Amino acid sequence: MNTTPSPTASDLRRASMCQLLHWLAIGRTRPQLLADAYMEAIERLDPQLNAFVDLRPGLVQDQVVGAEKRRQESVIGRLDGIPVAIKDNIDIAGWPTRAGLPGRGEKDATQDAHVVSRLRAAGAVMLGKTNMDEGALGAVTHNPHDGATHNPHRPGFTAGGSSGGSAAAVAAGLATVAIGTDSLGSVRIPASYCGVYALKPTHGEISARGVVPAARRLDAVGLLARSVDDLTVLLQVLAGYDADDPRSRHRRVAFSPPDWEPGRLRCGLLPDLRAIGVEGEVADVFDAVIGRLPFELGERQTVDFSDWDFARTRRAGLLLMEAEMLGTFAGDLADTAHPVSDDFRSMIAYAQSCSAADYAAADRVLDAAVLKMRRLFAQVDVLVLPTTPQTAFALDAPVPANQADLTSFASLAGCPAVSIPMGVTASGLPAGLQFVGPRGSDLRLLELAQVCAASLDAEPVYPVEPTRSA
Amino acid sequence: MNTTPSPTASDLRRASMCQLLHWLAIGRTRPQLLADAYMEAIERLDPQLNAFVDLRPGLVQDQVVGAEKRRQESVIGRLDGIPVAIKDNIDIAGWPTRAGLPGRGEKDATQDAHVVSRLRAAGAVMLGKTNMDEGALGAVTHNPHDGATHNPHRPGFTAGGSSGGSAAAVAAGLATVAIGTDSLGSVRIPASYCGVYALKPTHGEISARGVVPAARRLDAVGLLARSVDDLTVLLQVLAGYDADDPRSRHRRVAFSPPDWEPGRLRCGLLPDLRAIGVEGEVADVFDAVIGRLPFELGERQTVDFSDWDFARTRRAGLLLMEAEMLGTFAGDLADTAHPVSDDFRSMIAYAQSCSAADYAAADRVLDAAVLKMRRLFAQVDVLVLPTTPQTAFALDAPVPANQADLTSFASLAGCPAVSIPMGVTASGLPAGLQFVGPRGSDLRLLELAQVCAASLDAEPVYPVEPTRSA
Repeated sequence: MNTTPSPTASDLRRASMCQLLHWLAIGRTRPQLLADAYMEAIERLDPQLNAFVDLRPGLVQDQVVGAEKRRQESVIGRLDGIPVAIKDNIDIAGWPTRAGLPGRGEKDATQDAHVVSRLRAAGAVMLGKTNMDEGALGAVTHNPHDGATHNPHRPGFTAGGSSGGSAAAVAAGLATVAIGTDSLGSVRIPASYCGVYALKPTHGEISARGVVPAARRLDAVGLLARSVDDLTVLLQVLAGYDADDPRSRHRRVAFSPPDWEPGRLRCGLLPDLRAIGVEGEVADVFDAVIGRLPFELGERQTVDFSDWDFARTRRAGLLLMEAEMLGTFAGDLADTAHPVSDDFRSMIAYAQSCSAADYAAADRVLDAAVLKMRRLFAQVDVLVLPTTPQTAFALDAPVPANQADLTSFASLAGCPAVSIPMGVTASGLPAGLQFVGPRGSDLRLLELAQVCAASLDAEPVYPVEPTRSA
Repeated sequence: MNTTPSPTASDLRRASMCQLLHWLAIGRTRPQLLADAYMEAIERLDPQLNAFVDLRPGLVQDQVVGAEKRRQESVIGRLDGIPVAIKDNIDIAGWPTRAGLPGRGEKDATQDAHVVSRLRAAGAVMLGKTNMDEGALGAVTHNPHDGATHNPHRPGFTAGGSSGGSAAAVAAGLATVAIGTDSLGSVRIPASYCGVYALKPTHGEISARGVVPAARRLDAVGLLARSVDDLTVLLQVLAGYDADDPRSRHRRVAFSPPDWEPGRLRCGLLPDLRAIGVEGEVADVFDAVIGRLPFELGERQTVDFSDWDFARTRRAGLLLMEAEMLGTFAGDLADTAHPVSDDFRSMIAYAQSCSAADYAAADRVLDAAVLKMRRLFAQVDVLVLPTTPQTAFALDAPVPANQADLTSFASLAGCPAVSIPMGVTASGLPAGLQFVGPRGSDLRLLELAQVCAASLDAEPVYPVEPTRSA
């Protein structure tokens, strides 16, 4: 008889999804214990953290009962019993999809989003909906209607955004994995600030059906987790062609065992991070980490980004979002009973002053980004850079304009990108290491990220028990 | 010794490209004889027809000398010696690319467009540049700066457009095949009016590098020829991934032997052509032709297009073109020394009154078209319909608004479409039969079109010797 003690609630909240699937498979834990551990922690910690905006314990319990029953009686799914948090711009049937806006709370979604239906079919347990920036436009999750999500590593600091609730929930051990969305960096930025793992897949790889659109040419469903392997399993469950998503594409290259040899990898590095606005503390950690991966990153090459205009590409990506949001959120903007914030209104209003020709010009900037990245990936296999130019900042501090500068490459060009924690800066806050590859290289990127994560052997810092600073 | 007489100049101008390649291979003709036949006919007939806007006999002769030399001494290309006409919005190095506008005549292109470089590598002989609507915005080729191209079947009538010069040249035997562009129907419409064969490939299948952009999400290089087989060979020479075209895509489905069995084909037909604006004469010919293909078109199904708003989709496609043209032609619009026409200016000016949100909304109409066609092609293998709602009309008659209504389906959804001549209407003018298939089905569509063309066994009506009506 196995006398190994059962994992504690804290163990269950620290473990990676793959670890939990193993424990579930050998009977060392059960879906009910798992859900209890997470729901208890949510009840205790989330009033301060504010990662969740919609929790329905009764519905969670219904799902857990189903998971328990399947595990005893029938075929179980790939993620059976795993607690997942869902960003509140993704439809769960029977729940409202508020997208961070005040007027959408009374209308329930009638169908699960494609990703939610895949999660459900795999047996995952949807814990609740997570906080985000209004309309997903922003990267701080300081929502004027639902309050700010705090950074689990430092209360009073931003969790990043727009998928800040999802990232904070994973970092604080309030969900095993979480689903977010990423149009210019919205899963990778909060992953970097909160010290968790994130994947923005190749554009079109995971269906965006049932997700509130931001900018269709950029929008990607993104994944947040506590290990690279968890991202890999989630991607396999969620990716695939969906005929009902006009931007979904048949895979051109079949997912296959990675074919990069790390020792022969051609690794692209940016010439001078500080010159493009990366904070010294973040650059220091990055330089040190790169130095600790002499074999893993293969042959390094400095790539030329002198022709990349950060301000221009930033404006182009934002214009696409703002212009589409004028249509997507027309009802919200007109809803006087539930007014959106002045900030949100004024950001979107910028698009009202832009012409159709301005939109076409912005869309051409994306075409140029596609060519830039294609040429880059003829020279190197992967681009390695920090995920964000800075670490988390105080919720009442000014918001830097360049939060998405290092994540937008991949977004504008439709390329996959992985962010892993690379350690903490001198200020004691986490920062992310980002891997960007050519379209379709998602699994290869994940393998490389896993090799690097293993070599860095980062001290596990999860879950963080948040406490509101006095 | 072979005593078969050599083909006459008229034979050379009537023959399909495949026939000419055969004659060249067995020595029954030579590149010089071929070029002489076409150049003589151009000199004699084009002053009336006005298909060409830029002819450089010296440069043609240089190419012919090269083709003669290769044929005697070295490896020959797939199209070696074949005379080709090029629409004047496609770059030929050393020639200006005027795009139907008055101010571009003094600046020569420095590089061949991708298609021209492929044609050149295959040994084709570029005869000259062909007439088009100003900026490719329009479908009549009644160019205010270069004059109208006349329909070879009836002088004084439009050849259609915007690739009207290319279609008329092929119909009149002034080029064996021609290259055009097709954003909403610009090769298929003139092919229908002029009684020739056309292919608009799957979007991104042929690189558009070196082509003056109209609307990048719609733009396709299109092919015009005197047989389906010629289109097939041309497609094989010209198609393929081009890393330097941001819209070029790796083929998702390899070109392969067609896998439709005509007898089991599921063929979609529109419910009531006359109700959606197809002229009675054209609908009569269409109905008769469909009746003559009982086996070829397999099992017919009437498809539902009641949710398709022709006016709305037309406006959406045009807005994308106009908005992008405000950028593409900014220099031309500002050039007071070489003013564009008031018509062109006012069409494009419409986009100035449109916002970035209007553009985003129009782009969403295209997403809806993608879904509509995907659902349609889950029900049927191919959609069969007339290419144009009307036949050619007098150059001084009002221009119908619905010229592109039947070609725009394929354009908005990025699908391939083939147009073949289906006969002449009661008025004695040609009309086209159009086959539309799902993305990537180009070769299967061409096979079906070839089977139908063979069954219809249309009387060869080419070349038409144009004579200016008194």
